[in-house]
Amino acid sequence: MSLLVVGSIALDSVQTPFGSTADALGGSAVFFAASGALLHPVQVVGVVGHDYPMDRLEHLAKRGIDLAGVSQVHGESFRWKGKYSYDLQNRETLETRLGVFAEFAPRIPEQFRDARYVFLGNIDPELQLSVLDQVHEPALVACDTMNYWIQGKHEALMALLRRVDVLLVNDAEARQLSGDWNVYRAARWILKQGPRFVVVKQGEYGAVLVGNDGIFYVPAYPLEQVFDPTGAGDAFAGGFMGHLAASNDTTPANLRRAMVYGSAMGSFAVEEFSVQRFDELTRDQVRERVRAFADLVRFDIPPVPETV
Amino acid sequence: MSLLVVGSIALDSVQTPFGSTADALGGSAVFFAASGALLHPVQVVGVVGHDYPMDRLEHLAKRGIDLAGVSQVHGESFRWKGKYSYDLQNRETLETRLGVFAEFAPRIPEQFRDARYVFLGNIDPELQLSVLDQVHEPALVACDTMNYWIQGKHEALMALLRRVDVLLVNDAEARQLSGDWNVYRAARWILKQGPRFVVVKQGEYGAVLVGNDGIFYVPAYPLEQVFDPTGAGDAFAGGFMGHLAASNDTTPANLRRAMVYGSAMGSFAVEEFSVQRFDELTRDQVRERVRAFADLVRFDIPPVPETV
Repeated sequence: MSLLVVGSIALDSVQTPFGSTADALGGSAVFFAASGALLHPVQVVGVVGHDYPMDRLEHLAKRGIDLAGVSQVHGESFRWKGKYSYDLQNRETLETRLGVFAEFAPRIPEQFRDARYVFLGNIDPELQLSVLDQVHEPALVACDTMNYWIQGKHEALMALLRRVDVLLVNDAEARQLSGDWNVYRAARWILKQGPRFVVVKQGEYGAVLVGNDGIFYVPAYPLEQVFDPTGAGDAFAGGFMGHLAASNDTTPANLRRAMVYGSAMGSFAVEEFSVQRFDELTRDQVRERVRAFADLVRFDIPPVPETV
Repeated sequence: MSLLVVGSIALDSVQTPFGSTADALGGSAVFFAASGALLHPVQVVGVVGHDYPMDRLEHLAKRGIDLAGVSQVHGESFRWKGKYSYDLQNRETLETRLGVFAEFAPRIPEQFRDARYVFLGNIDPELQLSVLDQVHEPALVACDTMNYWIQGKHEALMALLRRVDVLLVNDAEARQLSGDWNVYRAARWILKQGPRFVVVKQGEYGAVLVGNDGIFYVPAYPLEQVFDPTGAGDAFAGGFMGHLAASNDTTPANLRRAMVYGSAMGSFAVEEFSVQRFDELTRDQVRERVRAFADLVRFDIPPVPETV
């Protein structure tokens, strides 16, 4: 039940109130893989420049990440530089240098084309479509997108939506895509475009799964220390898809569990810079945090008060 | 197990993208009472001017609201005029005329002084303290406050916190009060000042209950139509306290249930202007919505994937 991710592989330089990092591992495919591989092996397709620290990338391979789809080409790697506000609520992009990522044209290696679970990270929807043309018969396809593509590649994005099972976006993206500020109406609109499920990520609050048969809400894990929010959404996707692939079960009940895994992995991601938190993380620790979610929302149906 | 609320009784003129209302019933005590009375009889203490539409207030009495503590004095009633943005995310106060509310000095009628459950709506903390001096032996006291008092009446507010069991605030207020932008650290700080529990309301996202023995999160009910957010926080408090009084149970497990009642009543409040939604609402409808929350967060603990 192989799990494939196609997305960016970047070098992030991030400033938070708690410190800064320079040229750390980043990008949607990296956060997804580092998170998802704790639950299921991950196959990665992406591109890096000649200057990418391959040793650090290969360090991830030990944890169940197959890098056979990562091509290294001449040119600079994708670099992103950003700075967070004191309360981590806002971030400013200081610099984006696409480098070799500007010419990225995903080629799925033969041995990855039977992938049953496919995550299309936030890249040009035309490229996301080209990935779907190369995989044979996935059981479930999920994708991410962003304001840039919603505005600039609307037609390709709509064509993509007709071919994916799950769209994962944040609330601002759901609003922009649908033109509706109400998140639940926005999700219903998206469901009509093709996906069977929409996941609306709400950052520090949580995430909501909307399908035709119901709505599921998972809160964000209550963290007293958040170090760096970068990559939380992709780590969420890694947990979500990693659980689906590991269980090979796409029933609504299992998508709910996948949401909890997603929220758990997103919460780990923000506890350290880059993908560092996943380095020593064990499956027992993941399981423990997933269990904590059950306690976080636990209540028994109130008895009917009889005093009125 | 009587339930007492002390707070404002106002006339609200509200503009939303969906319509407007003029001199509608409003104020913290009114929203609290209209909501709470669906679960348990509510005793109200407040003040209105000679111009208040007493017939409309007395209409509430039929639903289990005791207005013996509402005094009508000469002068204008408290009026608030506000306007919401197109997405209901922001509101602008167009006019505040305190009228007789400026001289409000709560006097608790003799027959209310044995109240077991007391809610101190958002008024001057010195007045909130004066209420506590007048009640005999409440089982549980909860209070609300706002930025104005946090800044201007800090010492009185701190004295109040030493005497209440539950503080209900929104996230901005929790941050301002504690000086900590992390909501969970802010809540821990507040717990050290006296309350056994802190409820942090997060608007359209949900609300979190923080106690020394754990954290409980209840999402907001997923509404596709929100009409007027005014009073949602006080309606939440009404549901929260109404359930506690009706069940006469202040255990942590029952506070969790009270959170769900609070979120349910808050969701009803925003579906119409003023307290209109509570007018025809039945306890069966409340119970149905409370049950819907159980489904909204329901998941079973995931089996351990065995594929890695």
